[in-house]
Amino acid sequence: MDLPPSPLARPFPELPAIAGVTARTVNAGYRDWTRSDLTLVELAEGTTVAGVFTQSACASSEVELGREQVRAGTARALVVNAGNSNAFTGYRGREAVKQIMEQVAGGLGCEASQVLVSSTGVIGVPLPKDVARAGVEAALAAEPVGWEEAANAIGTTDTFAKGAAASAMIGGTRVELAGIIKGSGMIAPDMATMLGYIFTDAKVAPALLQEMLSKANSATFSCITVDGDTSTSDTVLVFATGKSDAPEIVSWNDVGADAFYAALLSVCRELAQLVVRDGEGASKFITISVSGAASDESARRIGLSIANSPLVKTAIAGGDANWGRVVMAVGKAGEPADRDTLSIGFGGIWVARDGQPLPDYDEAPVAKHLAGEEITVEVDMGIGEGRATVWTCDLTHGYIDINADYRS
Amino acid sequence: MDLPPSPLARPFPELPAIAGVTARTVNAGYRDWTRSDLTLVELAEGTTVAGVFTQSACASSEVELGREQVRAGTARALVVNAGNSNAFTGYRGREAVKQIMEQVAGGLGCEASQVLVSSTGVIGVPLPKDVARAGVEAALAAEPVGWEEAANAIGTTDTFAKGAAASAMIGGTRVELAGIIKGSGMIAPDMATMLGYIFTDAKVAPALLQEMLSKANSATFSCITVDGDTSTSDTVLVFATGKSDAPEIVSWNDVGADAFYAALLSVCRELAQLVVRDGEGASKFITISVSGAASDESARRIGLSIANSPLVKTAIAGGDANWGRVVMAVGKAGEPADRDTLSIGFGGIWVARDGQPLPDYDEAPVAKHLAGEEITVEVDMGIGEGRATVWTCDLTHGYIDINADYRS
Repeated sequence: MDLPPSPLARPFPELPAIAGVTARTVNAGYRDWTRSDLTLVELAEGTTVAGVFTQSACASSEVELGREQVRAGTARALVVNAGNSNAFTGYRGREAVKQIMEQVAGGLGCEASQVLVSSTGVIGVPLPKDVARAGVEAALAAEPVGWEEAANAIGTTDTFAKGAAASAMIGGTRVELAGIIKGSGMIAPDMATMLGYIFTDAKVAPALLQEMLSKANSATFSCITVDGDTSTSDTVLVFATGKSDAPEIVSWNDVGADAFYAALLSVCRELAQLVVRDGEGASKFITISVSGAASDESARRIGLSIANSPLVKTAIAGGDANWGRVVMAVGKAGEPADRDTLSIGFGGIWVARDGQPLPDYDEAPVAKHLAGEEITVEVDMGIGEGRATVWTCDLTHGYIDINADYRS
Repeated sequence: MDLPPSPLARPFPELPAIAGVTARTVNAGYRDWTRSDLTLVELAEGTTVAGVFTQSACASSEVELGREQVRAGTARALVVNAGNSNAFTGYRGREAVKQIMEQVAGGLGCEASQVLVSSTGVIGVPLPKDVARAGVEAALAAEPVGWEEAANAIGTTDTFAKGAAASAMIGGTRVELAGIIKGSGMIAPDMATMLGYIFTDAKVAPALLQEMLSKANSATFSCITVDGDTSTSDTVLVFATGKSDAPEIVSWNDVGADAFYAALLSVCRELAQLVVRDGEGASKFITISVSGAASDESARRIGLSIANSPLVKTAIAGGDANWGRVVMAVGKAGEPADRDTLSIGFGGIWVARDGQPLPDYDEAPVAKHLAGEEITVEVDMGIGEGRATVWTCDLTHGYIDINADYRS
């Protein structure tokens, strides 16, 4: 099923080259198609790595191995297979990943444990070893490609290539960050997984890089949802090659650490939002801001309860300022709430305050806002200082088309 | 929006009259319609009551008051308003409920605290006191009606009237149970709430009746889902008039207690399943059986994670034996799981065993099963003895039609 680009798609941005990072793509043929489906990213010696992974109890071998590799903190290569997620494939799936790690290590002259692998696509079919072997061999000899080619090669049924960049000053030297991502929840039948990769020429100690990624993740990738369905393979990795002349960052107190974190957070936020913009059947991009909650984490959970409610999502698809459904979603979140201090707004206009609808609120600008493509929902719990912002898309006939009408 | 009956609808069954129970219905006019929308059920002196209510933090005044009333354990009347849920209406909503309680108590010569009230419909509009007052006055003088009329009068956009009956022998005397219910998640824009009422002529002490209802609830109403969206007003009440000649049941050890519980459980299960059969846009009735889990509660949560997954629900709508999505939903449930002992089947045929797909399973009977209207999904976790069964419906274009395309 070839889908047209999402109406919320964004053009692929100008991404800077990152010293120490070389990407190559080939058509390994994981499916019967002619597009590139195997991406090999070579990383300079000394590159540090951090990662966050799916919390699924049924995670793929790639994720299990990746967790160990990230703990060691250094990386020399990344391989991404598209078209087969290799999830739920038992020991045969694990063998295929190990084969790729060893083959790439041999080609680049590094340790197999420094080769990270991701796979995305059909669940339950072991990654074919012969296809992978020929693909990796071709990739080791291929010409380097640009970011957009790599962003396309890691995609499955994504409808547009997604990337983001930022820079930061560290001790007077500018460092660059570039990231690519694929996915939109589980974007088509048998296809799964959000995979995101961020590269920087800054020099960052692995422990700090992991702390920064985990912190940024909790405010970005952990705050998006398309359909509430968590993949078995979700992975976000950040690689720091250390090839810039900027001084190394080892702790939060080091010169430039705050600036680097701000840049990392910015790239994570942009990539996360791009996934929502490619959400299955999405016609509206929805930002939900929760304030006055018992804690930031409580605010995030309330935001996700609203963002995952099919009744809220369908109401917004229909341009309906249905704040009663927002009340429902707040109420079911299982978080501290006081019905009589709850306020709800759309597009910055309160429609209910302190547990009661505002009978005289101005409906016209609210209706106009909901007819647009970028929707905001404001919720004030009125009980504390916790706040969070989450992002989602609406639920339309397109979602059903993509997920129910495809196979028979 | 008048919807045709759900394709999964069932004809209204023969329900026995329950000694001590008299139902009356009138058109109070909560909306601009001619149907009955106020139901008054008079209960004999000595009637005991038990109830379970929504766990929403934004529950309606009816629910808040109902919790107190059920704790007292006796009831003389039930009033159900349809067309206005009176939820999120602050002190004005509470005043309207208290007015109804006092008016009915005056008419029947009982305590106001013995009059239970439920409301279902639009959120955020205080129940109009004048409409309610005239409606109650008319209902107190109206002719008694049968169960089907009452089942229709408590409905909002339900597409068919729903009822169930059972009987039990207590010490050689037969007692009867009759129940009615409305709802299917939140069945149409601005409409909410599952409301269920069960009546019996058995004599059951309030504390035991509550224990039995809570236990039955955890295996029936707590095991159904249409869209995972919990209403602000969900309520199930059971009333025992004690008008049969059977001996009173006070403890689980009393003669007939087990038989009565079995009958109550049967009525609860049938009513719960009828709600799923009226699920928004439902075309298939899905039974998910989880075994081998760490505990029964863990099995229930895993079952609900599967039942609430839009990807699983759309796959079944499309007749697709997409067990990879079931793996995904098991993995995201947050419950103990071991990918390598997980087995999944459809229609009683295993398609994946012990963490791997069965390459040679017979696809033809599985495809035939999924083309039908009654679908079963079997999941064995392979790690313990916990088991649960949950019920849901598929997710179709009908759900989007009902919830997004209605208002603009």
